[in-house]
Amino acid sequence: MIRFATIGSNVIVDAFLRGAAHDPRFAWQAVYSRTQERADLFAAKYGITKTYTSLQALAADPQIDAVYIASPNCFHAPQAILMMEHGKHVLCEKPLAPSLEESQAMVCAAQKHGVVLMEAMKTTLLPNFARVREALPRLGTIRRYFAQFCQYSSRYDRFKNGIIENAFRAGMGNGALRDLGVYGLAPLVHLFGMPQQLQASAIRLSTGVDGQGSVLMTYPGMEAVVLFSKISDSRLPSEIQGEAGRIV
Amino acid sequence: MIRFATIGSNVIVDAFLRGAAHDPRFAWQAVYSRTQERADLFAAKYGITKTYTSLQALAADPQIDAVYIASPNCFHAPQAILMMEHGKHVLCEKPLAPSLEESQAMVCAAQKHGVVLMEAMKTTLLPNFARVREALPRLGTIRRYFAQFCQYSSRYDRFKNGIIENAFRAGMGNGALRDLGVYGLAPLVHLFGMPQQLQASAIRLSTGVDGQGSVLMTYPGMEAVVLFSKISDSRLPSEIQGEAGRIV
Repeated sequence: MIRFATIGSNVIVDAFLRGAAHDPRFAWQAVYSRTQERADLFAAKYGITKTYTSLQALAADPQIDAVYIASPNCFHAPQAILMMEHGKHVLCEKPLAPSLEESQAMVCAAQKHGVVLMEAMKTTLLPNFARVREALPRLGTIRRYFAQFCQYSSRYDRFKNGIIENAFRAGMGNGALRDLGVYGLAPLVHLFGMPQQLQASAIRLSTGVDGQGSVLMTYPGMEAVVLFSKISDSRLPSEIQGEAGRIV
Repeated sequence: MIRFATIGSNVIVDAFLRGAAHDPRFAWQAVYSRTQERADLFAAKYGITKTYTSLQALAADPQIDAVYIASPNCFHAPQAILMMEHGKHVLCEKPLAPSLEESQAMVCAAQKHGVVLMEAMKTTLLPNFARVREALPRLGTIRRYFAQFCQYSSRYDRFKNGIIENAFRAGMGNGALRDLGVYGLAPLVHLFGMPQQLQASAIRLSTGVDGQGSVLMTYPGMEAVVLFSKISDSRLPSEIQGEAGRIV
C-alpha cells in the first residue's frame, strides 16, 4: 500500500483520484492546498481529514510515502524536489517542469534520494499506443506523422472578459504547447526519437502565453507536424502515413 | 465560338475536353503533340483531323483562336509566350510556370499582345469555395487554416522500379508542391492573402524532385499549415478553425 498526499485541488486531481480508487494499493491520506479553506473543502468532498497548507509540514510527515503534484507548472520542480529530499516518491503532472534545466534538477533529485519520479502522462503507456507501434511496420516507409490537439478552453472565454486564470497567466509555465502540444509530441518522440530539424510558430496572447502553436519537424525521409490550440477547436484526427498505408 | 487547339495528350487533356464539351462556345480544332504518331492517335480518339507536331506551325494557324496547354510544367512558359505572340489566347494548366520569373514573363506577354492568359485551376472559382468564403465571418476570429493533398502517385510505384516518368524527372518543373501543394495554397492566398512568414520542409527523391512537403505559414493572429505528398496517402480533411467554430 502506498500512502499518498495530493498537492492541488483542481479538476485534474478529481480525475486522478477517480482512477487511483481502482487500485487497492493506493491509500489517499492528505490534502495540500495553499489556503486552509480550499484544503478543507477538497478534503471534505472525499471524507479525508488530514490537510496541509505548509509544504514543509507535508514533506516532514512520516505517514506519507508519495505525493501527486497537480499545481501550476511553475511550482512542479520546487515542490517535487522538496518532497524527494524528504524521501517521498513523486507522481508529477505533465509537464514535469517548464524548462529542461528544472526537469533535469528533478531527475537528479530522484536519483540522489533514491525515490521514484514519474510524469503523470499515460498516453504512450496505453494499450492503443502499443497497437499503433505494432502496426507501423505494415505501413511501409513512414513518410508523415500528423497529430493535433486543439480544444477551445473555457478559460479563454473568461480570458477575453478580462479574467486571467492560471492557465493563461504569464510566468506560470503554462500555455498551449505545454498543456496540449505535448500530447502530440510525446508519442512522436516515443515512436521516432528526436527530430533532425524543427520549425515552429505560435500565436501569443496579450499575457505572452501561447494560445496556439504549430511545429514542423523533419526526420530522415519523414516529416512530422503537430498542431495545438487552446483558442480554437479541431475535429481532425491524428494520422501516420506510410508508403503502403496509414493509421488514423 | 472560340476555336481551340490542345497542346499535350495526357489524361488531363481528356478531362479538359469532357468539361469543355458542355460549352457550345468551345470548338476544338487541332491537336499538337511532339510526335505525329501520338498526335494522330489522340486526334483519332476524338474524330479530329487537324494535327500539329510543330509549335511554330500551330502558332501561325489563323483558324485557331486559343490554345489549351497541358505539357510538362517546364514547357508552359515558352509555349504560352509563343502562342500569345501570335495573338492566341492561352488557357494554361497549373502551375503557370515553375518560377515567378517565367510566370511574370507570361503575364507581360499577355498584356503586350492583348490576349487572355488564364491558369486552368478552378477550385477557387467553384460554388463550394464561395460558400466557404461566406461562412468565414461566422467562425469568429480565424486562428488556423489547415489543408492537405496527399495522394500516392501510381507513377511512384514505377519510380521505385526505376522507371522515371516526367512527374518525377528533374528539370521538368514538377514535384509534389507544384502538382498537389498548390491546391492547398491557392485557396489560402485567395482567402487570406500572402503570409507574413513561411517555414517549410520537403522530402526530396533521388532525382531531386520533391515527393512530399509541408509548409507552415503565419498571418496576424493566425497560422496556416499545408501538407502535400505524392508518396503517401491521407484521409485528413482540410479545416479552417475560428474561435467560434470550424469548417471541415
